[in-house]
Amino acid sequence: MPVAVLRLGHRLGRDKRTTTHLILTARALGAHRCYLTAPDPEVQQTVAALQRRWGTTLEVVVQRNWRKVLKERRGGAIHLTMYGENLPTVLPALQALVERTGKEELLVVVGGAKVPGEVYALADFNVAVGNQPHSEVAALAILLENLGGREALQADFGGPLRIVPQARGKVVDDATAR
Amino acid sequence: MPVAVLRLGHRLGRDKRTTTHLILTARALGAHRCYLTAPDPEVQQTVAALQRRWGTTLEVVVQRNWRKVLKERRGGAIHLTMYGENLPTVLPALQALVERTGKEELLVVVGGAKVPGEVYALADFNVAVGNQPHSEVAALAILLENLGGREALQADFGGPLRIVPQARGKVVDDATAR
Repeated sequence: MPVAVLRLGHRLGRDKRTTTHLILTARALGAHRCYLTAPDPEVQQTVAALQRRWGTTLEVVVQRNWRKVLKERRGGAIHLTMYGENLPTVLPALQALVERTGKEELLVVVGGAKVPGEVYALADFNVAVGNQPHSEVAALAILLENLGGREALQADFGGPLRIVPQARGKVVDDATAR
Repeated sequence: MPVAVLRLGHRLGRDKRTTTHLILTARALGAHRCYLTAPDPEVQQTVAALQRRWGTTLEVVVQRNWRKVLKERRGGAIHLTMYGENLPTVLPALQALVERTGKEELLVVVGGAKVPGEVYALADFNVAVGNQPHSEVAALAILLENLGGREALQADFGGPLRIVPQARGKVVDDATAR
């Protein structure tokens, strides 16, 4: 199942690290696309530079019209919000949604400061990763891992740099240095 | 199993949002303590204010001597690093560690910019949540969820504010308003 993340309400400057963490987390867990509703050159350059070294598997798409992304989607949409149904409760229904929408892109909507009420109505599910305030990065990570991201954790990302996992210390295989 | 997070290398100002996300993620997944190696009044006040409303279940402890925390621990220590053994591979061994150390505090070490080599040696396990660069917040979330944090996602945190999970919209029960 291809996964895309729609990041709402990114604020230039203030949110650059959180949004970068969010995009890289999505990538590490197998997402292939992230929609930003406003360009942020610093974030986009950081992600592009990282992918040149570690493998380009995710595309950042700037789309100011988030309604269009949500309304014209072909697969399911899961909106992450602390006010939603708690993940452990709703997980079987999410898995059924993923099963049903098959090869279509699953859209995971991650809010920023103020999420318009319309988002709650347009999503198939409003899901809380615990009904406590914490972090959209953590919520995305846990949701994706529960929907099959664990396989992505072991995937080959195809970049020139590859870590060789170690019990102690650091080993990086650099294909450009051979 | 009680869980504590040891946050290394927090930089005042620059890391405040990431460290706040890290602490709140630890809390939402059931950790009861977070060690910071330097005070950060802004982070500490944000966490304290949030806990007054949502329930005080986690203690922030400033301990400049991280070696002491690591060396004098009574339970296991898991260091999160992208260079470590990949979580899916090492998970059964981590579960065995948790089983063996029983009621002692499990220490999860989360690095910052530069982690001293000594940390890799002192930890029981160096664990990568995928061998790709992403986010320490995401890595902590997935590790804790895999070690039993899913129960915490459904726990009552005892604060005056409680979300009543909804399929659509937001409902917050405020005990101070009754």
